[in-house]
Amino acid sequence: MAAPIEFWFDFSSPYGYLAAQKIDALAARHGRTVDWRPMLLGVAFKQSGQAPLTQIPLKGDYSRRDFARSARFHGVADFRMPEKFPIPSQAPARIVLWAKARDPAQAAVVAKALYRAYFFEGLDVSDPEVAADVAARTGLDRVAARGAVDDPAVKDLLKREVDGGIARGVFGSPFVFVDGEPFWGLDRFDQIDRWLATGGF
Amino acid sequence: MAAPIEFWFDFSSPYGYLAAQKIDALAARHGRTVDWRPMLLGVAFKQSGQAPLTQIPLKGDYSRRDFARSARFHGVADFRMPEKFPIPSQAPARIVLWAKARDPAQAAVVAKALYRAYFFEGLDVSDPEVAADVAARTGLDRVAARGAVDDPAVKDLLKREVDGGIARGVFGSPFVFVDGEPFWGLDRFDQIDRWLATGGF
Repeated sequence: MAAPIEFWFDFSSPYGYLAAQKIDALAARHGRTVDWRPMLLGVAFKQSGQAPLTQIPLKGDYSRRDFARSARFHGVADFRMPEKFPIPSQAPARIVLWAKARDPAQAAVVAKALYRAYFFEGLDVSDPEVAADVAARTGLDRVAARGAVDDPAVKDLLKREVDGGIARGVFGSPFVFVDGEPFWGLDRFDQIDRWLATGGF
Repeated sequence: MAAPIEFWFDFSSPYGYLAAQKIDALAARHGRTVDWRPMLLGVAFKQSGQAPLTQIPLKGDYSRRDFARSARFHGVADFRMPEKFPIPSQAPARIVLWAKARDPAQAAVVAKALYRAYFFEGLDVSDPEVAADVAARTGLDRVAARGAVDDPAVKDLLKREVDGGIARGVFGSPFVFVDGEPFWGLDRFDQIDRWLATGGF
């Protein structure tokens, strides 16, 4: 069986949220599964000297317009730009990694639930209590999920994921690897689709 | 008749070059013409705190790979990343503005010739002599084109274009306005296509 597609994302990334609505179906069309890999973009931003889009002069205003327009273009009705933005994404990222270690399929479910809680319901999932509440909705044990946020082993796992991502050139969200080939952005999903269909171009 | 599509671009922008191969046909499919508007991205970069893509840590390596892959994806066979990159783009921008004041249709022809000279032939079109040579290939008077690069009125015109672009939020290349709606990047051409077909979404 072909290797899973690696889907790297940050919970504070609007394009990551939109991409999260698309990646499973894209992979499935080509007989692939998805490895959901939460990331802390802030760490990558420090290395690359970047900043959150909305904080960049000129680019900021355009970005907010483009988030909403891209949601409409891609048929994602459930998008509302959160008032609090950006947020630190350690809590939801750690819960996903913790869930994934127990059941990879569950990781995708809880990741999508956390993304939706933030980018549609406007819940501040950077708060460990809120993130644990959302995790519990997906059937996970709330106390265990809340505990994962402060678990040194899970913290260390996330740190290694972030370092490993940066070492492989992950500087944005979403960031996808298909058999080692890197693609940055929801707007490369058309290239990913052709890459998967043809084996590369 | 519907208003022309505004196509803002910098002669040192690889994605601008790729987009320049696509914009006329995209507009024509919807009964539109294109207003070719050369821009100096360096001035916008200063305001937005950005840098040329290839100079950004992590993003730089990815960008070079993506330039070439995007060229293949979009069927632009005539693309070779120039050894000298980026370049200042005053000389070709001024020649295009000068040509456009005399004949708007000629501006598109000379713009595409200058872009191709840099991004396929590897000619350094930041050199006014080289830019004038390329302009002459398209039937323009070489001496007059060379003179335009140092003409205070043309210099002033470009300065006003750049200031006007920045005032309207142009921070990247290509940057397209369709009836006032802003689109940044070749990877928004699918959205532009739908916008033109539907009148907005």
